[in-house]
Amino acid sequence: RISWISDIIVVVSPENIETMKSIIEKYGHKRVTIVKGGITRHRSIFNGLKVFTENEFSNRLLQKPEVVIIHDAVRPFVEEDILSKVVMAAKEHGAAGAIRPLVSTVIASAADGCLDHSLERARYRASEMPQAFLFDIIYEAYQQCTDYDLDYGTECLHLALKYCKANARLVEGTADLWKVTYKRDLYAAESIIKDNLSQQVCVITDVKEAVAQVGFLLHESLKSQIKVEAMSISLSKNDSHLQNIFSGQCYNFVCVNDKKYAIQETQQLVETLEKSNIPLLYPVVLISVHLDISENISFSIGMEELARIKKFAREVKKKNILVYGLLIQYK
Amino acid sequence: RISWISDIIVVVSPENIETMKSIIEKYGHKRVTIVKGGITRHRSIFNGLKVFTENEFSNRLLQKPEVVIIHDAVRPFVEEDILSKVVMAAKEHGAAGAIRPLVSTVIASAADGCLDHSLERARYRASEMPQAFLFDIIYEAYQQCTDYDLDYGTECLHLALKYCKANARLVEGTADLWKVTYKRDLYAAESIIKDNLSQQVCVITDVKEAVAQVGFLLHESLKSQIKVEAMSISLSKNDSHLQNIFSGQCYNFVCVNDKKYAIQETQQLVETLEKSNIPLLYPVVLISVHLDISENISFSIGMEELARIKKFAREVKKKNILVYGLLIQYK
Repeated sequence: RISWISDIIVVVSPENIETMKSIIEKYGHKRVTIVKGGITRHRSIFNGLKVFTENEFSNRLLQKPEVVIIHDAVRPFVEEDILSKVVMAAKEHGAAGAIRPLVSTVIASAADGCLDHSLERARYRASEMPQAFLFDIIYEAYQQCTDYDLDYGTECLHLALKYCKANARLVEGTADLWKVTYKRDLYAAESIIKDNLSQQVCVITDVKEAVAQVGFLLHESLKSQIKVEAMSISLSKNDSHLQNIFSGQCYNFVCVNDKKYAIQETQQLVETLEKSNIPLLYPVVLISVHLDISENISFSIGMEELARIKKFAREVKKKNILVYGLLIQYK
Repeated sequence: RISWISDIIVVVSPENIETMKSIIEKYGHKRVTIVKGGITRHRSIFNGLKVFTENEFSNRLLQKPEVVIIHDAVRPFVEEDILSKVVMAAKEHGAAGAIRPLVSTVIASAADGCLDHSLERARYRASEMPQAFLFDIIYEAYQQCTDYDLDYGTECLHLALKYCKANARLVEGTADLWKVTYKRDLYAAESIIKDNLSQQVCVITDVKEAVAQVGFLLHESLKSQIKVEAMSISLSKNDSHLQNIFSGQCYNFVCVNDKKYAIQETQQLVETLEKSNIPLLYPVVLISVHLDISENISFSIGMEELARIKKFAREVKKKNILVYGLLIQYK
């Protein structure tokens, strides 16, 4: 997704390495090297860094980067913008990390389970991920740190400060960087994905005037609620405009036509979608609208058509493409 | 809901007082006094406490309690158990509050936007709500504290410690006490409510043998996934067992019968449900199953029955009761 990242090291617990391999293969991820994790957070990160300096953790020695980003898999909604900000800040300051305001006040408890003191909330921040470091700084910090650090520490910025005197630059992150921790966070994550997927719809119509007009009206009525891309194309010509749309982030398509056998066009669209790899990560929704405005409307032909779409929809559902058929007969 | 709480003071910003009044009326909340909030958290809480000592904030002076609980409306999933724990601890220690482990490391930032130092995560806790205090302690703390405290402070436990030397007892709370802060938290809250509502189903059948047998089988097949209460009753007798169920926390009912006109029983159940006030807060689901095991099955009578249920369902939906009709004809 982000071209300026040269290698992605995924540190995984030994029992999950096979699962991770199959995920990487299934979704066609590139530039990925899997590394076996340690028994604590810091030991796992250190293993990840060693890929660039030692041979034992990987088959091939990767080229040592200038800057390395450290991120948690439990923060799935990281944007390119914050990655780029922490990297630029790390280049300048040696270390950088995303922060967020504290939601609750933080307190220190005494040994007897009573309040020792509370911190002034405005002076403190939650340290989140991603963080970025000059590779030499964070690697040296890990080499110098104690077993106690490796076993009980949690904060990479702390190691960079303690062992390399790098005062990390703190970069304000977005709310979506939160750590998916509890069951409720899974629901929240699901809702964010659904929200993102439903941001945009693409209305595709035939070039014929009556149908293109329907596409235009649909565009007009939807555009206040959602980002709409509308286009009239000749599907058979495998339009390059369509290719462009498919290379974008659109997951919802409404295809309007008045052909007698609309299913052929639907099949063609689905084929192009499949090739685009869009349905690999998230389901694609395609609503095929057959507009019957002919003089002699045949109810039975329409129903046959719908039955065919239904059968076709059942097949392509396996490919993560959800096809819906809508028949409109209008005199 | 919790009988040992004598008064509930709701502190609301001036512009939302009318809305809050209508909510309290709509849901029939008792023991509630509304108080106008201040411009900061501490000023609002102080206003709430003054209800027990001054006349200006309320029409009537309420009886001063021994212990007062302070809670945030943004933490809707507070259980009686944690309320009771903080109250008991406050009685003994003067102050008590719920805590949770920190999810992220907390850091202090220097004036230049760089890391000053990070806190050892294991030594600190997030201070959550509810908190409880001996009334005299927290009231005195508010009376003595400075304008700076009132304007910039956030932590009641801190005031009790600073001005009354009360070392608050810290009580481990559940994960559900988190603060609903971001849009994603609303989705998470919705999912928790739905989860809770779908924990239990009540299967109600007629006393006749064949129908009671269906109820038994349904119970057997559901019990591994969900808490099931099953009972065979004569609905016309307005069974007291049924009343008990309705006073509990069940929001899902399956009613199986083989009467020719099952709708009468469904109507009766809906009436009892309405009187119970269960549908006031959350929607109640009632699936009315009409089991037709007679020799002479009449398809048309069955369909008429379903049409009637559908019409009835549309009416009672307004009362937050969702009725579904299911017709099973079996020879």
